[in-house]
Amino acid sequence: MADGAFGRDQVASVHIPPIPEQVRRGEALQDRVRALLPTLAANAGKAEAERKVPEENIRLLREAGFTRALQPLAYGGLELSPEQYCPLIVDIAGACASTAWVAGLLAQHGHGLALMSKAVQDEVWADPEALLSSSVAPINEGKAVDGGVILSGRFGWSSGCDHAQWACLGFRKAVPELGGMMLPFYAVVPRKDYAILDDWHVAGLAGTGSKTLELKEVFVPEHRIDSVIGMNTGASKGYGLHDGGIYRAAFVPYFSFGFSAVAVGVARRFLDVYADKTAGRVRAYTGAQVGQTAPAYMRLAEATHMVRAAQATLSQDWAEIASRSRSGQLPSAAELAMWRTNQAYATRTAIGAVNLLFAGSGGSAWFLHNEMQRLWRDANMAGAHAYSDYDIATQRLGRDLLGLEPDMAIF
Amino acid sequence: MADGAFGRDQVASVHIPPIPEQVRRGEALQDRVRALLPTLAANAGKAEAERKVPEENIRLLREAGFTRALQPLAYGGLELSPEQYCPLIVDIAGACASTAWVAGLLAQHGHGLALMSKAVQDEVWADPEALLSSSVAPINEGKAVDGGVILSGRFGWSSGCDHAQWACLGFRKAVPELGGMMLPFYAVVPRKDYAILDDWHVAGLAGTGSKTLELKEVFVPEHRIDSVIGMNTGASKGYGLHDGGIYRAAFVPYFSFGFSAVAVGVARRFLDVYADKTAGRVRAYTGAQVGQTAPAYMRLAEATHMVRAAQATLSQDWAEIASRSRSGQLPSAAELAMWRTNQAYATRTAIGAVNLLFAGSGGSAWFLHNEMQRLWRDANMAGAHAYSDYDIATQRLGRDLLGLEPDMAIF
Amino acid sequence: MADGAFGRDQVASVHIPPIPEQVRRGEALQDRVRALLPTLAANAGKAEAERKVPEENIRLLREAGFTRALQPLAYGGLELSPEQYCPLIVDIAGACASTAWVAGLLAQHGHGLALMSKAVQDEVWADPEALLSSSVAPINEGKAVDGGVILSGRFGWSSGCDHAQWACLGFRKAVPELGGMMLPFYAVVPRKDYAILDDWHVAGLAGTGSKTLELKEVFVPEHRIDSVIGMNTGASKGYGLHDGGIYRAAFVPYFSFGFSAVAVGVARRFLDVYADKTAGRVRAYTGAQVGQTAPAYMRLAEATHMVRAAQATLSQDWAEIASRSRSGQLPSAAELAMWRTNQAYATRTAIGAVNLLFAGSGGSAWFLHNEMQRLWRDANMAGAHAYSDYDIATQRLGRDLLGLEPDMAIF
Amino acid sequence: MADGAFGRDQVASVHIPPIPEQVRRGEALQDRVRALLPTLAANAGKAEAERKVPEENIRLLREAGFTRALQPLAYGGLELSPEQYCPLIVDIAGACASTAWVAGLLAQHGHGLALMSKAVQDEVWADPEALLSSSVAPINEGKAVDGGVILSGRFGWSSGCDHAQWACLGFRKAVPELGGMMLPFYAVVPRKDYAILDDWHVAGLAGTGSKTLELKEVFVPEHRIDSVIGMNTGASKGYGLHDGGIYRAAFVPYFSFGFSAVAVGVARRFLDVYADKTAGRVRAYTGAQVGQTAPAYMRLAEATHMVRAAQATLSQDWAEIASRSRSGQLPSAAELAMWRTNQAYATRTAIGAVNLLFAGSGGSAWFLHNEMQRLWRDANMAGAHAYSDYDIATQRLGRDLLGLEPDMAIF
Repeated sequence: MADGAFGRDQVASVHIPPIPEQVRRGEALQDRVRALLPTLAANAGKAEAERKVPEENIRLLREAGFTRALQPLAYGGLELSPEQYCPLIVDIAGACASTAWVAGLLAQHGHGLALMSKAVQDEVWADPEALLSSSVAPINEGKAVDGGVILSGRFGWSSGCDHAQWACLGFRKAVPELGGMMLPFYAVVPRKDYAILDDWHVAGLAGTGSKTLELKEVFVPEHRIDSVIGMNTGASKGYGLHDGGIYRAAFVPYFSFGFSAVAVGVARRFLDVYADKTAGRVRAYTGAQVGQTAPAYMRLAEATHMVRAAQATLSQDWAEIASRSRSGQLPSAAELAMWRTNQAYATRTAIGAVNLLFAGSGGSAWFLHNEMQRLWRDANMAGAHAYSDYDIATQRLGRDLLGLEPDMAIF
Repeated sequence: MADGAFGRDQVASVHIPPIPEQVRRGEALQDRVRALLPTLAANAGKAEAERKVPEENIRLLREAGFTRALQPLAYGGLELSPEQYCPLIVDIAGACASTAWVAGLLAQHGHGLALMSKAVQDEVWADPEALLSSSVAPINEGKAVDGGVILSGRFGWSSGCDHAQWACLGFRKAVPELGGMMLPFYAVVPRKDYAILDDWHVAGLAGTGSKTLELKEVFVPEHRIDSVIGMNTGASKGYGLHDGGIYRAAFVPYFSFGFSAVAVGVARRFLDVYADKTAGRVRAYTGAQVGQTAPAYMRLAEATHMVRAAQATLSQDWAEIASRSRSGQLPSAAELAMWRTNQAYATRTAIGAVNLLFAGSGGSAWFLHNEMQRLWRDANMAGAHAYSDYDIATQRLGRDLLGLEPDMAIF
Repeated sequence: MADGAFGRDQVASVHIPPIPEQVRRGEALQDRVRALLPTLAANAGKAEAERKVPEENIRLLREAGFTRALQPLAYGGLELSPEQYCPLIVDIAGACASTAWVAGLLAQHGHGLALMSKAVQDEVWADPEALLSSSVAPINEGKAVDGGVILSGRFGWSSGCDHAQWACLGFRKAVPELGGMMLPFYAVVPRKDYAILDDWHVAGLAGTGSKTLELKEVFVPEHRIDSVIGMNTGASKGYGLHDGGIYRAAFVPYFSFGFSAVAVGVARRFLDVYADKTAGRVRAYTGAQVGQTAPAYMRLAEATHMVRAAQATLSQDWAEIASRSRSGQLPSAAELAMWRTNQAYATRTAIGAVNLLFAGSGGSAWFLHNEMQRLWRDANMAGAHAYSDYDIATQRLGRDLLGLEPDMAIF
Repeated sequence: MADGAFGRDQVASVHIPPIPEQVRRGEALQDRVRALLPTLAANAGKAEAERKVPEENIRLLREAGFTRALQPLAYGGLELSPEQYCPLIVDIAGACASTAWVAGLLAQHGHGLALMSKAVQDEVWADPEALLSSSVAPINEGKAVDGGVILSGRFGWSSGCDHAQWACLGFRKAVPELGGMMLPFYAVVPRKDYAILDDWHVAGLAGTGSKTLELKEVFVPEHRIDSVIGMNTGASKGYGLHDGGIYRAAFVPYFSFGFSAVAVGVARRFLDVYADKTAGRVRAYTGAQVGQTAPAYMRLAEATHMVRAAQATLSQDWAEIASRSRSGQLPSAAELAMWRTNQAYATRTAIGAVNLLFAGSGGSAWFLHNEMQRLWRDANMAGAHAYSDYDIATQRLGRDLLGLEPDMAIF
């Protein structure tokens, strides 16, 4: 009875409580971050207009320690557990989705770097405040040369690149040991090695400044390269260097915390804005008090249920991911499939809540000065990331649940 | 068995075929309009950027005769029947939603004017090409004076006002014969009597230029005023002046043709754009051909079904409205409730189709240069009009179906 | 602009008006059928309990001429056009879904037989009232012998078999001319050649008595066999024998009229039952009048919109199918894909309406004596037929719309 | 930023960990219950056929201690916390929904009784294994007499009444101190005082045997009566008698644990059955392997996400309810609104998952011998309980969120 989709060990049953000292560091960071929220919110329009996160926001989050949340203690980071870290993204997204998206990625890349070679960690964190942006889709092919690879090409949609001193770039490379099979790798590249193209002209999450990086025949030495597969299977160059309960882990679940957390954060903010605006809204044709009509408050209730469920399912995953990391065992394929695709589900649910409320908000919600307008576009845009693609998610999990071979065209 | 929601005479059973001469005029107009569509489509970006329909579009549609589609033959109009007229809105909306919205309203106001006093018709159509924009929500109160009313205030969201020589403005006025009850009226006001405020800064249908009109103590003589209730019940000043099978009719169904037709037209265009883009789309992470995956083409199929159903339900209503007008009998309350609310349903269905496809179109659909981006915003904005509010629609029809008193707060 | 999913000739543009004499025959039949509806409704419980359509129902529909609606005039049939015929299924389904399902198939098989050899038509219609049930899925394989095939096996789900004198059975057969490729065929078999297994124990449409037919080494002579592909492409043995505007047509669209029409008919009935019950419903905990609350009547309105749209989209298809038949040209692959899958969409929409209302009908709707209970199960069961499978429908239409090869695993 | 729907203290922030000894008792019970699941599953058909939970099931659950899960230690109960208790309902429902529904209510009534007078507790638990069924809707009116009330009438839908020695019946009574206002009360009545009418003929959860109890002029002494409002506000006669962290609590959240837990349990079971059946399913027309097609496994994935989210949101509430009880403070109105309505949301989500899978399961899922058939009806029936009415839920929570007065017609 109790087997099946859940019982087939799809889900970590291990529960290991968080490390108290981490919890305390997380609570202290939470206090510092919450104090910044009004400023981040006040800058949200600027972020959209400038098509990048305002410098002030990054400076404040850096000073608060947020961007070092997942950096190892050894380099002065906070080494927080997902249970403490992820809710902060939700909070920040309620103030400014673009800032949450970017600051989240900058922080999450700290976790990824901690899995790579000690040499590249020493190099990047020579400045312990150094930040990495990324472009992870392995579209370009690296040319193997002595001691490394040569990278050229455009690497798209590098959120927050304006604020980073390094970039982590996905590329494909033939692996001679596997008969020349092309596999994905990451390369860490310093700011001087690439140009930033100002091409981020979009209708949602405009403030993320997810511009294209251009590389021209850049040599990347071997110690700055690691295998994507390795980083997800405990076989990367730095695996085991750090512990703290979060580095004996696969890369992807940590890398991707922000995508769904941002969607949930925006949706939570939309609940508040809707409640405030609807309470006072009067219908133009009839003078009716919208906030006192059943359809208006029923929408709010349903959207509240949706957002609460989305966050509950993420919270459960955050705890499972954390517990699995603390166990020292890498997650199973089934766990990875569930966590990854639950994110897409939670994102879709959060967007659904936003759209439910937006569709009941009337014409005034369409004016550019109305906060709802930006929230609606930001929320929907959050769902457009490849990681949140629900068709991909259901194919991937569905194949796993029915015991079919993974389809490599579906990632 | 066959009674009930349908059988309780909710729906016109009368079927009277269209007048052949009208059909021929409609077909000729269709040919002229279709020839313009590439130009209108090419101007769509300009419409959005300028936040008004480009002059060229209005000039072309005027020359083609479109803006006179519902004007009486007596003033040189085409006096088309809904079956011929409405599909043209759908076609134009596929090229430029804002142009369809505005040109539709300008044309539909010709029908409304034909129900008002002969004096105001003579006055406006002294220039037979003259156009009216409108602001129909009766927010402001008119001050009754000898021979007319004094109007002051801001009259919002007057789509196409830049192209009109007159405006039709809703206002409330005390009716002494009804113990001073406040009722809604329309006033026709010449361009010199109002200022246009440049305040249309919105994220969808930006090209409609639906700006605010400002009036300061403007006297409107009695012959330019008519009662909203009268215009919907055959009691307006000009009722019976014209025939042609379309003027023995209520005002609202004709006034409102465009709202849902625009949504359907945009959705049809989205089907095409999605098909074209998806056929060639490659997934960044995996190189997979998106157009050959089941979820991608299943979305297209479902959206196609939705749009086709939305148009089928509207087409049925257009035929019923036309038949009812040709019968010379005014529609019943049940017919009005069904036609009005079916529009909101069709609009919602069309938007649902767009959102279904947009959610499967990936990040590239968010770039401002991608036609999908504008279509998505235009479609959703079409649903934000008060006339398309689905909560209102279901309350209104639902009360009617259960035999409850109309609720005046729900219109 | 106007090309694409619609404009790419997906849909018949030809419009040829119906033959007046057919229309008159249809109207007369409609009058006779409507007079039977109360009796059919009164027998609905009996149909479910006996797991077959009551004899009285079939007798009455036979006497009214309904079962001969699509039979050629040459054999004394009514040779009705789809526009007249299909709405009768909707009406009957409002009284008893199982009766509509069965009587519809019995009548529709008259159309199929009219495409087969003159010899089998003469044989079956030696009794002009003779009826055929069917089992069309080509699961069993026929063994080719001199002058025909030998059929054995179980042929499932033959709705209305208790009332038929013949059965039309799908089977597979190797075609030597095509290198032995297995293709589907139909065989017409007399009642004495098969046993009926009493195995129809189901929760919905129980009254259809869709039992299994068992054949043991039955010889079927060649003239009683025709190719499924031939029957859909004008290459069957009797193609061209009759006209009347409905026999120069593909088999499938006519064979399948009933599936979606039944779903719509049940949904229409549910609208009425819901309206009646909800008007008087009192909430147990609070004594509140449910029928006066917004959620209750909003559900009714939305469901009404849904059912109306479902029927509008079917009506449009019925007119297109009829027009295409009258044109004498066989439908294109695109037309077939659209008509077939629109049925699944309309069925799904009608079921959605039923489920929307049922979910708002409270616990009393679960008692077996409540008509809602049977309607809910019948409606959902209508969607379980392979022809209504929406996953199949969207794959088939989607591939067609994106120009992909048909996938033979998807029919 | 972080205020609003969540931040306005809608949700308990207090977190107090469970009492270790309770956790251990819960784990031991879990082991005993899990061992029974195969037997309960094997009896599921019998439960439906007999329209009551089989005696064997109740005996086994009684022997395992399940029915005493929420009974105070003082009477030999297990006094479990919601975190331990609720997942057992989910597990049992996966084996037999009716058994879970009934056994859950029998156990949950133990919590309610523990809030009433010590006299009635002593009386009922003179047999410490004694069980109560209920009929809580206060439809009938009690006649106040010296020392108690006289109750007459039919008390509907008393799940599990065949297995109970007592019944807890809701009724209305005038309260003289409040000017005769009618308020709801509960009366505990012994088995000899009422007849059970065999009237539970329903299509879902048939095994719950939720029959009508008939009382004829039954005197109920004062000590067996308590106020519904009192039981939810810490003002009942026995409030404070027990502790164990679960009796300083409102009645309703504990009374209602089962409704949504059953729906989730059935949905989890449906995931398994669907996976098993779909893996081997072959399409009749084409021979295609259904389980290898994207739509089939995508349905499974989406349904899995839905069920997981439903359970996650309930788990969060179970923890909040438990924490609030351990805090010794009664829940706020906002907490009660959130917990109660989240149940309806989770139930709806679980049913949605079942319906998603059922609609993709083909005709064979309609045969009565197919487990899917019963699961589908049981799941949907779970949503028909007044407590799960989503229109009520969204109205109640929506009014609360917008700060409107509670509407007494909505409970």
